[in-house]
Amino acid sequence: MKPVFDKSGLLTTVVCDARTNKVLMVAWMNEESYALTKKTHQTWFWSRSRQKLWHKGEESGNTQEVVSMTLDCDFDTLLVSVIPAGPACHTGHETCFFNEVEMEE
Amino acid sequence: MKPVFDKSGLLTTVVCDARTNKVLMVAWMNEESYALTKKTHQTWFWSRSRQKLWHKGEESGNTQEVVSMTLDCDFDTLLVSVIPAGPACHTGHETCFFNEVEMEE
Repeated sequence: MKPVFDKSGLLTTVVCDARTNKVLMVAWMNEESYALTKKTHQTWFWSRSRQKLWHKGEESGNTQEVVSMTLDCDFDTLLVSVIPAGPACHTGHETCFFNEVEMEE
Repeated sequence: MKPVFDKSGLLTTVVCDARTNKVLMVAWMNEESYALTKKTHQTWFWSRSRQKLWHKGEESGNTQEVVSMTLDCDFDTLLVSVIPAGPACHTGHETCFFNEVEMEE
């Protein structure tokens, strides 16, 4: 089973906490970071803003230990279930998703 | 607080089950579907393959009732927490993520 990378060679990736299922972050993998993640059991991404390979936690120490990886029904989106060593977000929040949107009544 | 749509006018969106936190699917919203989701409290997306607005469940009946929406730290990814009326996946699976990837030893 192989992932389908998009035209830019990227795979949309959702990272969730294996213990709570909480979504921690969304990032993109290229073929190299996907291979490194499978091999090292830690998350690697392709940073679209910095245009470079990115080992999550390499600077902050907040690595993510991979418990399992699952592709979606058409193989073009990846869910990675992890045990995080610290906050996923560079702001120090546990998860990058903390800006609540107000719904219309 | 406004989302940041990408160059194609799209916002990567993760849908999770409000009761279990489980990730159900990943899809894309444009400005119109985002507005409709906020207004109707059901999920609307932009189908990239069919290039049209897509009211999730409009054909299958498997709509998703929105409980909350959260933008990430840089406002360019959305997490929608829902109570689903049925399976999220067109295959009949509860979640689109069911293809387990084998890790390397």
